[in-house]
Amino acid sequence: MADTQTAEYRNIVYEVDSSVAYVTMNRPNKRNALSLEHMQELIHCFESIAQSKEISVVILKGSGPAFCAGHDLGEMVDQDPVFYRNLFDVCTKMMETIQSIPQPVIAQVHGIATAAGCQLVATCDLAVATDDARFATPGVKIGLFCSTPMVALSRAVGRKKAMEMLLTGEMLSSEDAVMAGLINKAVPADQLEEATKALASKIAQASPFTVGIGKQAFYKQLDMSQSLAYSYAKEVMSLNATAADAKEGICAFLEKRPPNWKGC
Amino acid sequence: MADTQTAEYRNIVYEVDSSVAYVTMNRPNKRNALSLEHMQELIHCFESIAQSKEISVVILKGSGPAFCAGHDLGEMVDQDPVFYRNLFDVCTKMMETIQSIPQPVIAQVHGIATAAGCQLVATCDLAVATDDARFATPGVKIGLFCSTPMVALSRAVGRKKAMEMLLTGEMLSSEDAVMAGLINKAVPADQLEEATKALASKIAQASPFTVGIGKQAFYKQLDMSQSLAYSYAKEVMSLNATAADAKEGICAFLEKRPPNWKGC
Amino acid sequence: MADTQTAEYRNIVYEVDSSVAYVTMNRPNKRNALSLEHMQELIHCFESIAQSKEISVVILKGSGPAFCAGHDLGEMVDQDPVFYRNLFDVCTKMMETIQSIPQPVIAQVHGIATAAGCQLVATCDLAVATDDARFATPGVKIGLFCSTPMVALSRAVGRKKAMEMLLTGEMLSSEDAVMAGLINKAVPADQLEEATKALASKIAQASPFTVGIGKQAFYKQLDMSQSLAYSYAKEVMSLNATAADAKEGICAFLEKRPPNWKGC
Repeated sequence: MADTQTAEYRNIVYEVDSSVAYVTMNRPNKRNALSLEHMQELIHCFESIAQSKEISVVILKGSGPAFCAGHDLGEMVDQDPVFYRNLFDVCTKMMETIQSIPQPVIAQVHGIATAAGCQLVATCDLAVATDDARFATPGVKIGLFCSTPMVALSRAVGRKKAMEMLLTGEMLSSEDAVMAGLINKAVPADQLEEATKALASKIAQASPFTVGIGKQAFYKQLDMSQSLAYSYAKEVMSLNATAADAKEGICAFLEKRPPNWKGC
Repeated sequence: MADTQTAEYRNIVYEVDSSVAYVTMNRPNKRNALSLEHMQELIHCFESIAQSKEISVVILKGSGPAFCAGHDLGEMVDQDPVFYRNLFDVCTKMMETIQSIPQPVIAQVHGIATAAGCQLVATCDLAVATDDARFATPGVKIGLFCSTPMVALSRAVGRKKAMEMLLTGEMLSSEDAVMAGLINKAVPADQLEEATKALASKIAQASPFTVGIGKQAFYKQLDMSQSLAYSYAKEVMSLNATAADAKEGICAFLEKRPPNWKGC
Repeated sequence: MADTQTAEYRNIVYEVDSSVAYVTMNRPNKRNALSLEHMQELIHCFESIAQSKEISVVILKGSGPAFCAGHDLGEMVDQDPVFYRNLFDVCTKMMETIQSIPQPVIAQVHGIATAAGCQLVATCDLAVATDDARFATPGVKIGLFCSTPMVALSRAVGRKKAMEMLLTGEMLSSEDAVMAGLINKAVPADQLEEATKALASKIAQASPFTVGIGKQAFYKQLDMSQSLAYSYAKEVMSLNATAADAKEGICAFLEKRPPNWKGC
């Protein structure tokens, strides 16, 4: 893999292989806890990826025993309101950046994904996990309800399941996470990397221009009434239809040959 | 069955049996691709059904090897923006008409339901499929993201599942479609007609007036905040309660006799 | 158990054991049908609970053979529009009160939960049922579509499943209700009380202040766009973070000792 920019990061590792970017949360001794600096680096990294025409898909993963254990509690003791508001501002910006960049982001989850770590899983476009991974929003146990993770969680899974996780703080198994819609699939631990890469490779075969149009429209239309969503999606799709890659794709399909994407 | 109006359609067959209407997409050699003319005929047909007091339920199905393969790509090559905007306008109108008519529409699915064909399944009030049917939104593979199908799909299934289908274009099995909430049930191929008809017959036993009030309110209230939805549904239900068929239905229930619907 | 206030209720029994309140619908011969008076007593009871600092969780259950069979049809025959509007106003107020009080409300379901009884299950924060319990919105069969139950049902389960229940009025098994997201879990009948109590006890270990903040924010943010939901949840969580119970909870966690909640 070609390391790029990693030198400037203290909490994450950034690598690119073919058109797939790997963003690794790299605070293994802290179970990749999301300190302010860690989140700022993730935001910077995702914003850089958004500018790159070479990257088609992103895989977000964690080093060490866990995917991510949420905020860095050591940093949160006895702070003033200004600190907390800024902390949750930065965290929310990180989540919103993941959904706003054109490239799909796949969470590759092992170990635990808890609190803001579980929110990351709910926020990523897709998620693949080991079959022994576990998911929780345990803030309620430490007196700090997972209110911002709730925003992502309650939009990914049903109300009863979200409430159960938020009110009990109990761990959800990977199997239950698939059933609930929190992740796409669970695989044996020794197949996690391969399965995630296979999913990324499949997406990377498509026109990045087309994928970017679709992904960005996905979240926008979800927040609209159906009628407005259709008005919006019709324009998005008409624009897409007139683009070079749609012409190429449709012609290639009708001529039964592989497409040759132009990226526009 | 009594054929009605079919003579005037070139792409669909319209039949009525008892109070159930059967709308058959009839371009088997094109896997019932939705050409402009085909969609305009479907709109006309559904609008006619809306005016009929004789029809209680509609079954939408396809002739030939597939339910529906989406738009007619042959028609879409190298068109100008005006063409595309009109095409997606007509397609959206077709989807919205299915949800706005008072009669429930059941998709009876076999073979494949892809792109706008998958959107049709997501849009219909109910869906029954053969256990070997398959569902996909594969536009991403031909450079044209399924942006309008996304509106219906992402309102029928969870986010992660919708994103997976949209970003990979892969086929979903009937079993997975049941799990995801895209269809109501999957049955062996030789039981498809019977199972769909049984579902239609069950609904046809109810007062069409009552069913129409409920179905039309369903989609309207879904786009409201819960508080507004309750304000709206309270009025709908109060109106319903004062209607003849509610009086008859409640009395029949309390007197343990079958109801005799007046249709108002 | 210490009975409190029960003397003043004619349709319900109210008991408190430790910090768990038990609200029992007590019209067993009417399968706990929701007469106007019954609903007004439930509203009064839930509003009283909201004021109590002693109560952490509420369990809502039914006496006799069923959880709740919905409205009292005997009361609904041949009334005028003013009666119906008031009836659905009171019913809606009851549902909204359950979601607006700070304490989580768990439905403990046996037998049937139909029409407004099914709406109660969909409305409660959590639901545990016997594995032979059944759920339905059968209004369509008596000419009165379950339009207000639809508001809660269609926000708890997917569209296709909600439509199937509303249009057919058929019973859903507990197993299917778990799959659909209508209830959290199904257990053998002889374990229902114990399982519900265990869930309540788990929640009762948390700071009631924290739980109340989280539960009340849950429903508010669900009705917002994701962007507004984050703006709102950030403020909620910042406020929560500066509270005594969050400081205590985080310190206790870091010091590996049990927390000692202050309730603020």
